[in-house]
Amino acid sequence: MFLTRTEYDRGVNTFSPEGRLFQVEYAIEAIKLGSTAIGLKTKEGVVLAVEKRITSPLLEPSSVEKIMEIDEHIGCAMSGLIADARTLVEHARVESQNHRFSYGEAMTVESTTQALCDLALRFGEGDEESMSRPFGVSLLIAGHDEHGPSLYYTDPSGTFWQCNAKAIGSGSEGADSSLQEQYNKDLTLQEAETIALSILKQVMEEKVTASNVDIAKVSPTFHLYSPTEVEVVIGRL
Amino acid sequence: MFLTRTEYDRGVNTFSPEGRLFQVEYAIEAIKLGSTAIGLKTKEGVVLAVEKRITSPLLEPSSVEKIMEIDEHIGCAMSGLIADARTLVEHARVESQNHRFSYGEAMTVESTTQALCDLALRFGEGDEESMSRPFGVSLLIAGHDEHGPSLYYTDPSGTFWQCNAKAIGSGSEGADSSLQEQYNKDLTLQEAETIALSILKQVMEEKVTASNVDIAKVSPTFHLYSPTEVEVVIGRL
Amino acid sequence: MFLTRTEYDRGVNTFSPEGRLFQVEYAIEAIKLGSTAIGLKTKEGVVLAVEKRITSPLLEPSSVEKIMEIDEHIGCAMSGLIADARTLVEHARVESQNHRFSYGEAMTVESTTQALCDLALRFGEGDEESMSRPFGVSLLIAGHDEHGPSLYYTDPSGTFWQCNAKAIGSGSEGADSSLQEQYNKDLTLQEAETIALSILKQVMEEKVTASNVDIAKVSPTFHLYSPTEVEVVIGRL
Amino acid sequence: MFLTRTEYDRGVNTFSPEGRLFQVEYAIEAIKLGSTAIGLKTKEGVVLAVEKRITSPLLEPSSVEKIMEIDEHIGCAMSGLIADARTLVEHARVESQNHRFSYGEAMTVESTTQALCDLALRFGEGDEESMSRPFGVSLLIAGHDEHGPSLYYTDPSGTFWQCNAKAIGSGSEGADSSLQEQYNKDLTLQEAETIALSILKQVMEEKVTASNVDIAKVSPTFHLYSPTEVEVVIGRL
Amino acid sequence: MFLTRTEYDRGVNTFSPEGRLFQVEYAIEAIKLGSTAIGLKTKEGVVLAVEKRITSPLLEPSSVEKIMEIDEHIGCAMSGLIADARTLVEHARVESQNHRFSYGEAMTVESTTQALCDLALRFGEGDEESMSRPFGVSLLIAGHDEHGPSLYYTDPSGTFWQCNAKAIGSGSEGADSSLQEQYNKDLTLQEAETIALSILKQVMEEKVTASNVDIAKVSPTFHLYSPTEVEVVIGRL
Amino acid sequence: MFLTRTEYDRGVNTFSPEGRLFQVEYAIEAIKLGSTAIGLKTKEGVVLAVEKRITSPLLEPSSVEKIMEIDEHIGCAMSGLIADARTLVEHARVESQNHRFSYGEAMTVESTTQALCDLALRFGEGDEESMSRPFGVSLLIAGHDEHGPSLYYTDPSGTFWQCNAKAIGSGSEGADSSLQEQYNKDLTLQEAETIALSILKQVMEEKVTASNVDIAKVSPTFHLYSPTEVEVVIGRL
Amino acid sequence: MFLTRTEYDRGVNTFSPEGRLFQVEYAIEAIKLGSTAIGLKTKEGVVLAVEKRITSPLLEPSSVEKIMEIDEHIGCAMSGLIADARTLVEHARVESQNHRFSYGEAMTVESTTQALCDLALRFGEGDEESMSRPFGVSLLIAGHDEHGPSLYYTDPSGTFWQCNAKAIGSGSEGADSSLQEQYNKDLTLQEAETIALSILKQVMEEKVTASNVDIAKVSPTFHLYSPTEVEVVIGRL
Repeated sequence: MFLTRTEYDRGVNTFSPEGRLFQVEYAIEAIKLGSTAIGLKTKEGVVLAVEKRITSPLLEPSSVEKIMEIDEHIGCAMSGLIADARTLVEHARVESQNHRFSYGEAMTVESTTQALCDLALRFGEGDEESMSRPFGVSLLIAGHDEHGPSLYYTDPSGTFWQCNAKAIGSGSEGADSSLQEQYNKDLTLQEAETIALSILKQVMEEKVTASNVDIAKVSPTFHLYSPTEVEVVIGRL
Repeated sequence: MFLTRTEYDRGVNTFSPEGRLFQVEYAIEAIKLGSTAIGLKTKEGVVLAVEKRITSPLLEPSSVEKIMEIDEHIGCAMSGLIADARTLVEHARVESQNHRFSYGEAMTVESTTQALCDLALRFGEGDEESMSRPFGVSLLIAGHDEHGPSLYYTDPSGTFWQCNAKAIGSGSEGADSSLQEQYNKDLTLQEAETIALSILKQVMEEKVTASNVDIAKVSPTFHLYSPTEVEVVIGRL
Repeated sequence: MFLTRTEYDRGVNTFSPEGRLFQVEYAIEAIKLGSTAIGLKTKEGVVLAVEKRITSPLLEPSSVEKIMEIDEHIGCAMSGLIADARTLVEHARVESQNHRFSYGEAMTVESTTQALCDLALRFGEGDEESMSRPFGVSLLIAGHDEHGPSLYYTDPSGTFWQCNAKAIGSGSEGADSSLQEQYNKDLTLQEAETIALSILKQVMEEKVTASNVDIAKVSPTFHLYSPTEVEVVIGRL
Repeated sequence: MFLTRTEYDRGVNTFSPEGRLFQVEYAIEAIKLGSTAIGLKTKEGVVLAVEKRITSPLLEPSSVEKIMEIDEHIGCAMSGLIADARTLVEHARVESQNHRFSYGEAMTVESTTQALCDLALRFGEGDEESMSRPFGVSLLIAGHDEHGPSLYYTDPSGTFWQCNAKAIGSGSEGADSSLQEQYNKDLTLQEAETIALSILKQVMEEKVTASNVDIAKVSPTFHLYSPTEVEVVIGRL
Repeated sequence: MFLTRTEYDRGVNTFSPEGRLFQVEYAIEAIKLGSTAIGLKTKEGVVLAVEKRITSPLLEPSSVEKIMEIDEHIGCAMSGLIADARTLVEHARVESQNHRFSYGEAMTVESTTQALCDLALRFGEGDEESMSRPFGVSLLIAGHDEHGPSLYYTDPSGTFWQCNAKAIGSGSEGADSSLQEQYNKDLTLQEAETIALSILKQVMEEKVTASNVDIAKVSPTFHLYSPTEVEVVIGRL
Repeated sequence: MFLTRTEYDRGVNTFSPEGRLFQVEYAIEAIKLGSTAIGLKTKEGVVLAVEKRITSPLLEPSSVEKIMEIDEHIGCAMSGLIADARTLVEHARVESQNHRFSYGEAMTVESTTQALCDLALRFGEGDEESMSRPFGVSLLIAGHDEHGPSLYYTDPSGTFWQCNAKAIGSGSEGADSSLQEQYNKDLTLQEAETIALSILKQVMEEKVTASNVDIAKVSPTFHLYSPTEVEVVIGRL
Repeated sequence: MFLTRTEYDRGVNTFSPEGRLFQVEYAIEAIKLGSTAIGLKTKEGVVLAVEKRITSPLLEPSSVEKIMEIDEHIGCAMSGLIADARTLVEHARVESQNHRFSYGEAMTVESTTQALCDLALRFGEGDEESMSRPFGVSLLIAGHDEHGPSLYYTDPSGTFWQCNAKAIGSGSEGADSSLQEQYNKDLTLQEAETIALSILKQVMEEKVTASNVDIAKVSPTFHLYSPTEVEVVIGRL
């Protein structure tokens, strides 16, 4: 079966006989190799938590950015190829700024997500801004707008879904099961923080510390937790 | 036989010795993997009903959009790659708006369908807007214009047909048979709703709920049913 | 022999060692899979008749367009890929309109046919308007100009011939034989209608009805027969 | 030996180890499949005669154009792909018109032939006007200018030679032998007509009629014979 | 396993079934063949030290530049393909100059690093400035700005990390271990010089001399040590 | 050995592992298939002599041009693909004319040769004027300028050498040996004519006549011998 | 091993799994086939000496240019493909002239070398000026500027090094060993001439004559030795 499959999977944007786009599926594999990220939506706002793999004690933990701000009301957590994520986030930032400039108001979280996915969808098209391969990254986009808090999940095919809670990356399978057990819509933001970190702890091989996880919230503005604030959440576990 | 076939099917837009375009045929396979959608035309208007696959209880059902508005008098149901469908729908929306702006009147349903199919046909041509592969999506386009209600069916080759009733997606074979048995031109809109949902119920593996199906009508304007309205139709089954 | 042949037939526009262009030959195969169309030229005008394959009783027969108007004095019947035919017809319509605008008179039938074939010939050339593969369609172009009625036959290589009568599509072989037996230059338009339909009847698997055939004439302007008019011709068989 | 050869012959414009350009050689094969054409130069002018393959009695013989006018003092006979020949002839017509417009005098026959061959040579170069493969056609170009009558022979490589007499197409081998036996520089135009047609008769499978051959002369202007004029020549055989 | 792998690794920017980008991984191999470079951050500034492979005694040691100035407050050490490094450094220099010109102040070290990585990420995209393959070089970027001293490490994928200390090149594995043992945040600049050179000495096959190593510091401006200054550090070992 | 070689020789401009450019070497093979041409430089001027292969007695010998004028003080003899040679000569003519126009004086023979070789070198580069393969032709360029008479030899790689005497084409090996024996710098132009023709006679399969050889001299202007003048030289043999 | 290697070496600019760029390595092989060139730097200036392979006694030795002037203060000796070298030298000449024109002073030797290598590095990038393959040539660039005399060595990867003495081409290995033995920084220019020629003599198969070697110096301006001047150096051996 494998031999036949190889016949179709090298063209970046070509259907296999079964109607599959292998390059997108392989990009999704890239994400399964990535570090785990978790998002939870509450009525008070959205919490994001990520594992940071600090491969050497000489690395500056704060320079391993797995959570980034898109606009003051939107942030995202990523899993997969960091350089690809930076390109998508930079694109979303520019779109968001342009919207503020043109319309004098913030872009909605869904429009921002859509703009980012439009770029992801057009891989292999030879456009100036698009990539010659799918973006090897999944994002959890947390935001707050006139519709309240929201959490979006994007994949390399340029598709997105709105979620109440979601995990991505190498530990996502176990983390998603735990989220389904523990999530309910009436969680407080603080409870969501605790759940996110306790699930992250289960899927990480190392002990959780203020250096190897990042936590952020959008409530209603984006805020990346300081090491001290992370310590507080760790303390609650 | 399979080996010979592989010789022709990777060029995105090349004929096989039998005069076939394999990439289009493979894109059609992508749709057979998709969720089922059904459309029925009545004298009062057109009904669309789709299955929504909610892969996780943490997903927001309303964010799984399988029915979208193109203009106030046109909507569509889709099966296949959602991101591809969004590109086609967005293109049709822009064409429709431009028509209103230039001519001061709504674009006919057929012209809108034609504009959408023109884009689908030109895959592999290296145009700015076109894709490097066929769009892996089928649409049921429901509309109402000076010619009354109409229902169009499009496939990845950029061809379209006008229908009285049509099913697409993984359950389309069984659903089309049922439609042929139950359809007649004198159905009321309410009867069409009931037939659409009862056929969807047959082909779906899960129990039908207000979360995993969407219903819409164009009569004479597009309206996506609220969960409560869907519940009412479910109640009639 | 087949293996050697595959070495040459995937380049869209490359000669084989025997001096053949396989992609054009394969496109011609696509037409042999198409529905049958017939044209007859009389002194009174030209008659076109086509088989329509209505794959489902839920399909709107009138939306299966196999005969299209190019200008008020020119129409065409097609066999092969419908979406390709639409592109060619649309191109011919624009050329014809431009001619009227620039010169204040109708374009001749031959010039219109030539313009359409120029586009067909340039497949694989990377032009803005041309396709990356041959157009998989044959046309019977019926018209009436200062030289009187005329009938042209085009194939995917961009070549065209003027004919007195011609059949294209899956039943063309048998239909052409019948045409040679029954055609003479002194047929009336009504006799031509009857011959066209009776030959179509022979090659169709289904019973001929007003739903599964279309008839048109150019005499001297293009006219597509209404179902009632088609019924009249059927009645004469 | 054949297997090794296939390694080099698909690149449209690549040398084989023996220094050969296979795509040009294959295009020359396309001409060997074509109908036969003959040209003879006399002091009074040049005669062209071609076989027309009328594949169906329903085809309009006059629409099978194998001899075309380039300018009033130049015409050509062709063998090979008709659509390719039309492109070359159209190019030569434009060049010739431009020359008249710019310099107020007719283009010489050699310059016209050179202009046409310049286009033929540049296949595979990605220019706007050039083809992605060699032109699959040979031409016999007959003309009359300040240097008197002349006859040129062009092949798909873009090379041309001036000849006293020449045959191209499927019957060219036998026809060339006959021409060498029967040609001398003091032939009258009428004798040349008779020789051309008698040789054509030998290589044609069918009986020669006014429908399946065309004759033209440039003496000093281009003139395509009417069926009646062709009958007269046939009568002399 | 190797054979299957070769199926995916030649497309410059294509995912393998496991979600890997082989061309980037192979570029990383190019760096493992390169000479060793070491960077250490102290509170007083950053130290860079590199091995220079002088393949012939006739080579001018000062012309083997493995440490280059980017701006007066930023310098970098490199390992891998020198010509690639020059392109990246030149790009960073231009970006840095433009920043000074537009904003009247120095570009931060992180922004400069980001600009350089943006170029590295876009390999295979056909841009004017980008390469058709990944840049086969890693850099240690040392700088000093409003946030104090900083050290960045970049790899061929266009990703960068901030470090306290880092080694790259053929001896990086052993050198990184030694750095982890000997590094602490309170080192003086002079202690850092000594540690860098003593570790370099361990991984070099040849005796350390003023000709085959280069040392530089950014404290707060870039300074490349003269042979005499290098001798002083060697003397301390 | 041959199989390995085929791996590298189809890329038009790619090195083999031994550092060879096979497409250039194959183009050189094309010249070994060509007719023989000979050039000799004397103090009085340069003589060129070429074999013309008249494949049919019906061909006009004067239309087989193997010696062409570039400017009034420069001419060339060619061996290989005639159509390629025409392109190079036409390019050299334009450069030469432009030089006269811009500087009011004739271009030197070396500059003209360099301009022609610049075009030959850039094959496979996708420029507007350059070819997608090497030019399959060698030239002997004879000229006379302020430095006196000169003879240049060019090959398909775009390289050129100045010679006292040189033969190219299928008989070049034997002809070059004879030239080395018979050439000395004090030959008169008439002696050079005789030597050139006597050597050509040795390598030609047919009897030498005024129809199947061409002779030209540049002394100090280009002059192509008339058949009568050629007869005179033949008479001296 | 060889078979696996062939998988990677045809893409002009692609890394192998070991991080190697095979096309560059193959271009370096092209240089190993070239004639030997030697350069020596003294305090008085730089000496260049090259072997010229005169393949035929009919070739004009002075037209085999292996040493070329770039500017009045810079010259270079080459080994490998002469036509490639001419392109690089021409590029350097233009850059150097532009520098003089813009800044009113001579370009430094290093900047000129860098400009030349920038072009060499960008092979395979599709730029207007760059080649589709690496330049198959190495250069020894001798110059004299405000920093005194200098000698640079460039290879096909676009990398350059400053040297005291260096040999390139087929005899470079033996010549480099001899240079290391005989070179010291206090050589006079005349001693350098003698050493260069005596080493060249060792690696050449033929006897050294004024026809088959060229010598040049930059001291402080470029001067190519006349045959008489070369004879003087030969006399000293």
